[in-house]
Order: sequence, then C-alpha cells, then structure tokens
Amino acid sequence: MESPQGQALRCIVKMGGAAITHKDEFESINVEKLSTTCRQLSQSMNASCNTPINMDWSRGDGAPLVPEVLELQGNSICTERFIIIHGAGSFGHFQASKSSVHKGGLETAIGKAGFVATRISVTKLNQEIVRALASEGIPAVGISPFSAGWSTRSRALEQYEVSMLRKSLDCGLIPVLHGDAVFDSAQGCTILSGDVVLRKLAQDLKPLHTVFLTDVPGVFDRPPSDKDAILLEEIVVHIDGSWKITRPVILSAKTGVETVTAAHDTTGGMAAKIAEAAIIAVSGVDVYIVEVGTQHALEAFNCTSRHSLSKEWVGTIVRASS
Amino acid sequence: MESPQGQALRCIVKMGGAAITHKDEFESINVEKLSTTCRQLSQSMNASCNTPINMDWSRGDGAPLVPEVLELQGNSICTERFIIIHGAGSFGHFQASKSSVHKGGLETAIGKAGFVATRISVTKLNQEIVRALASEGIPAVGISPFSAGWSTRSRALEQYEVSMLRKSLDCGLIPVLHGDAVFDSAQGCTILSGDVVLRKLAQDLKPLHTVFLTDVPGVFDRPPSDKDAILLEEIVVHIDGSWKITRPVILSAKTGVETVTAAHDTTGGMAAKIAEAAIIAVSGVDVYIVEVGTQHALEAFNCTSRHSLSKEWVGTIVRASS
Repeated sequence: MESPQGQALRCIVKMGGAAITHKDEFESINVEKLSTTCRQLSQSMNASCNTPINMDWSRGDGAPLVPEVLELQGNSICTERFIIIHGAGSFGHFQASKSSVHKGGLETAIGKAGFVATRISVTKLNQEIVRALASEGIPAVGISPFSAGWSTRSRALEQYEVSMLRKSLDCGLIPVLHGDAVFDSAQGCTILSGDVVLRKLAQDLKPLHTVFLTDVPGVFDRPPSDKDAILLEEIVVHIDGSWKITRPVILSAKTGVETVTAAHDTTGGMAAKIAEAAIIAVSGVDVYIVEVGTQHALEAFNCTSRHSLSKEWVGTIVRASS
Repeated sequence: MESPQGQALRCIVKMGGAAITHKDEFESINVEKLSTTCRQLSQSMNASCNTPINMDWSRGDGAPLVPEVLELQGNSICTERFIIIHGAGSFGHFQASKSSVHKGGLETAIGKAGFVATRISVTKLNQEIVRALASEGIPAVGISPFSAGWSTRSRALEQYEVSMLRKSLDCGLIPVLHGDAVFDSAQGCTILSGDVVLRKLAQDLKPLHTVFLTDVPGVFDRPPSDKDAILLEEIVVHIDGSWKITRPVILSAKTGVETVTAAHDTTGGMAAKIAEAAIIAVSGVDVYIVEVGTQHALEAFNCTSRHSLSKEWVGTIVRASS
C-alpha cells in the first residue's frame, strides 16, 4: 500500500492464540511470550528513537497511584508501519463453542448470551495486548472487527472496513485487530477468525510480508511431538492455489501435512492455517511461520525480503511460485 | 426509529462519569452505583423473562475456574431497545488532559502517547461496564466510536456510524458507547465526548426519551452544595435553542444555572450538559436528568412519557416547548 505519505505497510503480524495464551488454561495470557514479542516488535518498529516510551498510563493491578508521565515535548516517535492481529487462544473459544456462536442462533437465549460472552472475552484479551504493546512504546490502538462493521454472509466475509486502518497507519498508529463474534446476514451471527481478517488485510493493504507466530518452530510434515517430524522450510503456492513443499526434499511423495488440533480450537488448526497462508502467498505476499519469542521471530519482523533471512533462520516460508 | 421489526428505540441512557466512577480517585469505578444501575436497567428492559441470565462468562479476578454455563436452550430474552453511553469520569481524563489530546498533536510523542493512553483507559472502563451489564442479563456489546469510524473536523462531529447500532438493536443487543479519542480532519485528533455521541444518536434514532444519570438529584440554580440551591424541575427549550425554567417559579428573573465543574472534566461541566440536553430536547426528545442509583432513576428508565412520571419523582425534565 502506498499511503499519502508514500510509505508501504511493512508487516502484518498474526499472534496465534497458542503463541500468546496458555491454551489449556481458561483466559490465561502467556505473559512471558507476549512481553518478549512486544519488546521484539518495539525494536523492529524502531518505536522510540531512544528508550521506549511507556504509552500505557493506566492503573495496573494493585497500583493505585497516578503514573508519572514523562515530559515528552519535542520527542518524536519513529514507527514502521505494522498491523497486529491476534487469535483468541484460551479467550473466547470456550464461550463461542459452548453457545455455538459460529452457527448463529442470535435469536435464542443461549446464542445471544454466547455472542455477548464471546465478545467480552476476546475484547478483554485485545485490551491486554494493546496495553502490553503500549508499555513497550508501540502506539497501539485496539479495533474490534464487530465495532468496525465487519460482517459475514453464510460465514464468508461480506463487509469489512479498512479506511480506519489506513488512516491509523498514516497517523503512525499501530492497529490491533482480533478474531471476533460478528453479524452474519444469512445466519444472524458467527465467528470471524483472525486468519480471515489477516487474509483480507494482506490482500487489500499489500504488506511487504506477514508473520504468523506459533508455539512450534514452523509447519511440520506430521505432529511436531512426533520424533521423526520434519520442519517444512518452504512451501510454494501456485496460481491455482495448489502448493508443494520445495524445501527440504522429502522422499515420500505421499507425505501430507498433519498437526495436532486442539478440540476447542473452533476456527481450525494448523491445516487451516496453511490454507490461509497459501491464499495470502498467492496474492504475492510472503508468509513466515515462526516460533513466538525466538530470535527467528525477531528476524522475521526485521527482514525486508525472504532473501535477507540468515542461513540460521528456522521457520516455514510460504510464498508464491515465481 | 421504526426498525424492520417496527419497534421503537425506547431510551438512550447516559451514565455520567461522575455517576459511575469516583471522580477524585484515579480509574476507580463506583461499583455500588454501577451495580444498582445495571440491576435497574435489567428490570426496566425486562432483560430476562424470569431470573436474569449471566452473560459474562469471563474469568473474574482470582476466579480461575471455567464458569458453569446454564442450560438455556429454549429460553428467550425479552429486551426493550436501549442504547447506553457512558462518560469517562476518572478514566481517560487524566491521560487526555496530560497530553492535551483535545487540541491535537498526534504527530508529537506526547500527543501520540496521550491518544493511545486515553483510548486504553476509556476502553478499560467500557469493558467493565459491558461486563457489569452482561452479568445482570443485559446483552450488551461495547462499540468504541473510534473503532466504529466516528471522527470530527475542528472538534465538531464530521463522520459517524449508526447502521451497526440499528443492526444491533434489531438483533436484540444493547450497544454501549463512550467518549473516545478520535481522528480530527483539521487538527489530527481530539476528544469526542459522550454527550456529543448521545446528541447525534438521539437526533438520528429518535428514542422515546433520554436519561442522564448524575451524582446529584438533577440541575440546580446554583451549586447543589449551597444550602439555598433550588432543584430545577422543568426546563423548556424553544425552537431557537433558548430555554427557560418553567418549574418551580423562581422569583429572581436573573437566576442563572451554575454548578460546580471539576477542573479535570475536560469535556465540560453541568452547564455544557444543559446545553447538550437542550439540543436533544429541541429535536423533540425529552431528557430526564436524575440521580444515579435512586428510585427516581428507575422510574425515568421505566416511564413511557413525562406525563407518566409520579408526583414523587425527583429530577429535572428538559423538553421542547409544545
């Protein structure tokens, strides 16, 4: 995207639910991974010319005093253009699956309550992520897809809103979006996954690349817990959407992609994520799938093209055939 | 507003910042007043046919267990159409005034940090209010004006979005909006007060009436702390915007309206609120200004017209001349 200021969107980062929450512990953030990621992003965005400025001036738990705000007049904040999208992990999934919000049912008590409860849970996570980013000097603004007017028809994206995102980027702000409960013109309501939001934004705003943060080092040919699992280093997607593994060379032609999918992951597991990555890649935007909190994640944020990744980099690149 | 279902918007409730927060204690909710208000609203909306259904299935502070969700299949929720707007009180004002967000300055470090910090604080309050409403069975959905695309030009409202609100009401949901930091096409950014949001929605959606919840019994002719202060029972607004006190009859023709305005109330005090109420009233929508958490507040929520208010009702009615 060439903005009025002529600067391109550098990167869309998808913080996977499994990467930043403890998936098996109800509404529990993985504070360590989230903090590390926010520090890495701050560094990569060059968020403050010197020391990061804390932009979360809110009351912390048990901190009753008004925070001391630095005298910042005259300083400027140099920020690269990023958009952040996060999944739900242990937030939202319980509420959504208990009430089957993805299937509609807004006219019933359980459907309506589930819609409300799901939004409370995912916006709570969004709030915490925005605060964690802001405390590292990143000018983050939470934007809920529901509030911004995103909606679906028979679960496929129907309406979306990117002008606010463009405006935010032009003003040097970092939009933070998430999977959300939204209206559906056919079935009343559904769940709009963070992956679908990511896909739409990647297609419309054309970042230099996108980064998927996960809790494993990339995509494997079988569940990563399997001792023989092989990390897929590069997946090339053809114009018709078909894709093949180009690195490493795997002898068995039948090897498919198979990973563990947690039962409560209502928006799909790793296989669905590869399919999403392939759709993004085919539009010409490289996708790097990488383990959260590692040097490889930082390298993925920083790189200007896949050719600039070091030989030591560990992760999966999904790209279009050239 | 006649919706597709033909049902009118019954009431827009403005929860004043002073009514639901401790204004002198940084980011502190007045839990008692907020709880009472949510119970009253639940009762008034007939939110559940029987016992209110808890729609906040989120983890409470220190409650690590997944909540037990009631089996609700088959139940339906009868909800009157309400919109709730809240002020900021001790949330947001500190951040906004420290950085002068209302004057713009998004290109400076302090302005950008203040914008981010203000949004964090007001959305934190919104989250807590939505949860409090949901826990009383009200299907509340938080909608931030910034996220929904509201913006100003030279601090006057320029863009706004009500289609999501209409859709939410048609689906039986209760939108909860708030004062917010927004973009301004002339000066970069500013503060959009909850009162301005209220005025626009009242004009566009034509509720039967609006209710302003405050921390005093209504509007007085001088600061309510003054022992001689007289409660103004009715203010009538003429088509040209001028207004006069019609009840009680006050002998001194010179008596103006004067109340205490806290120094950190960056969006104006009671005088500004009367001006806002007058603008709403002149469009034909009655405004009831009433003390939070009282029987009078409940009566204001419940009433179908000002003529149905009891003789014992205490508050200020602002209405158009007939």
